[in-house]
Amino acid sequence: MRKLITFNSISLDGFFTDARGDMSWAHAGSDDPEFAAFVAGNAGSGGELLFGRVTYQMMAGYWPSPAALASAPEVARGMNALPKVVFSRTLPKAEWQNTRLVKEDLVGEVKKLKAGSGPGLVLMGSGTVIAQLTEARLVDEYQVVLCPVVLGGGRTFFEKNQLGLTLVHTRVFKNGKVLLHYQPQASS
Amino acid sequence: MRKLITFNSISLDGFFTDARGDMSWAHAGSDDPEFAAFVAGNAGSGGELLFGRVTYQMMAGYWPSPAALASAPEVARGMNALPKVVFSRTLPKAEWQNTRLVKEDLVGEVKKLKAGSGPGLVLMGSGTVIAQLTEARLVDEYQVVLCPVVLGGGRTFFEKNQLGLTLVHTRVFKNGKVLLHYQPQASS
Repeated sequence: MRKLITFNSISLDGFFTDARGDMSWAHAGSDDPEFAAFVAGNAGSGGELLFGRVTYQMMAGYWPSPAALASAPEVARGMNALPKVVFSRTLPKAEWQNTRLVKEDLVGEVKKLKAGSGPGLVLMGSGTVIAQLTEARLVDEYQVVLCPVVLGGGRTFFEKNQLGLTLVHTRVFKNGKVLLHYQPQASS
Repeated sequence: MRKLITFNSISLDGFFTDARGDMSWAHAGSDDPEFAAFVAGNAGSGGELLFGRVTYQMMAGYWPSPAALASAPEVARGMNALPKVVFSRTLPKAEWQNTRLVKEDLVGEVKKLKAGSGPGLVLMGSGTVIAQLTEARLVDEYQVVLCPVVLGGGRTFFEKNQLGLTLVHTRVFKNGKVLLHYQPQASS
């Protein structure tokens, strides 16, 4: 059984994108060496990445670019090399290297992935996908980086779901970001 | 100059009340002795409490009651004894002991309170009031208890404000709640 983790940066008011769909505020504080090492370590730690279309297109447009390779070479190499799955009914094909496009049956496909063997599954961004997998109770752990910022609007990746959580890990960075790992409670 | 602190319990999706206006989910985990001691210590540490009408009416209806005195005697005695201000244009009078009703000019009144002498000012709940005082840049510190729960809807106390923050204190409780103190950044 493979574990499915979600990984998101969120604001103190609970949003993972701002009102215009922008996520660049989440890069603030990257000059904290400890935080930068944490991000690079994540990208180099293996796993298979899952995305919805919107997050996929944002990342596929950035990480293979020379700008990404220049500014964050370790993260870029990791993101490009890792196996990836994008879930979308509308995307005609997935051009980012090592990416498989899945057009139908999100929940069924994720159940199959989890039942198989292989590295851990990490779902990044992708509010709509997280909300559906949360509803299907397929997420084993929610990892969030709580950023010291208030956005005043945007999208929450839980959408309408209600959920009791158990906090299993915390780490505070000097840049004011707080890493929090939560597991969903069985009863909720 | 008196310091103005806001104090709120929030969910991981950023809400301080759920979609029905309920805040009782924030009492979960009160059986953690360390957390209970923290709450009682807060209520006994002095200060002057500020509220908007909705939070005031909720608290004025609970803390003077025999039920509150039986279940959380220290907190109830503290809440009843502390000096309090409620801001409301519509409330005819404030009946909870040691409470002053202010009907007009929220921002001007808070400026006056801050410029005077006395104990620290603590604003609890009261999303609309927090949003207005945030906009007027009168809040010196936002203290939140991040609760291990997803509500799926409700109110965020920052409303439409955008704000850069500096994290100045954290404390993790065994019940999975995380206390976070943030100061607004001057530039934001």
